[in-house]
Amino acid sequence: MNLSEDEARERLALARVARLATVGEDGQPHIVPFTFAAVGDRILHAVDHKPKRTTDLRRLRNIRENPRVSVLADHYDDAHWEGLWWVRADGEARVIEDEEGRAEPVRLLREKYRQYRDREPAGPVIEVRVTRWSGWAYR
Amino acid sequence: MNLSEDEARERLALARVARLATVGEDGQPHIVPFTFAAVGDRILHAVDHKPKRTTDLRRLRNIRENPRVSVLADHYDDAHWEGLWWVRADGEARVIEDEEGRAEPVRLLREKYRQYRDREPAGPVIEVRVTRWSGWAYR
Repeated sequence: MNLSEDEARERLALARVARLATVGEDGQPHIVPFTFAAVGDRILHAVDHKPKRTTDLRRLRNIRENPRVSVLADHYDDAHWEGLWWVRADGEARVIEDEEGRAEPVRLLREKYRQYRDREPAGPVIEVRVTRWSGWAYR
Repeated sequence: MNLSEDEARERLALARVARLATVGEDGQPHIVPFTFAAVGDRILHAVDHKPKRTTDLRRLRNIRENPRVSVLADHYDDAHWEGLWWVRADGEARVIEDEEGRAEPVRLLREKYRQYRDREPAGPVIEVRVTRWSGWAYR
């Protein structure tokens, strides 16, 4: 069954990991698993380490070339397909490098993940503005 | 640490679920979680239900418009980031609809997933020919 927009938004916010798909000028899609904090229609991620240039990391280079991204969280259980679900958030992303812009996302990530309290992410932030929520659950 | 190509291939083959990213002519990436069987440099998936037209399902339409895809399997454990890993397979996909071409993929999927023994997937097969393996593990 399809999930409502609210249900999709809620399930994504509670997920601990999701996957980010980006695509560069060459038309080759790229996926990475990523940690994130979701607030309303914004999804926030921060790169762990500061790359020398923001074009060094594929996800950042792709977003600069094409801001359209897709984010997916899902639940799989080999023994119980009745419990399967997924939610997808499509939208536009931008890269935030200035300290002022990074402050709120990094704070939210530290609140969500204890690991970031010991060592906060030092790299650029990716902010996704979601324009379309969708989702599905087996039942 | 980066994983070798062999290690990446092996970890993907053992994964029970992965995510497929495709991208259409409009440049919007699309991700879905999917079941699959991996044999060497081929990744095989079958759509559960037969769509009325193969352009009805986004993943199929995108592959027809642009065969470049990316497949990701990953392991996340909130309590133990030391155990995190992911593997990615980039390549080109094609859609197989004829019964002769579907036979081997459907057989492999039935071998891997008991659920398909009760009800085998009835839709088109997606075959990915992997051209690049990559992977990473926390340790």
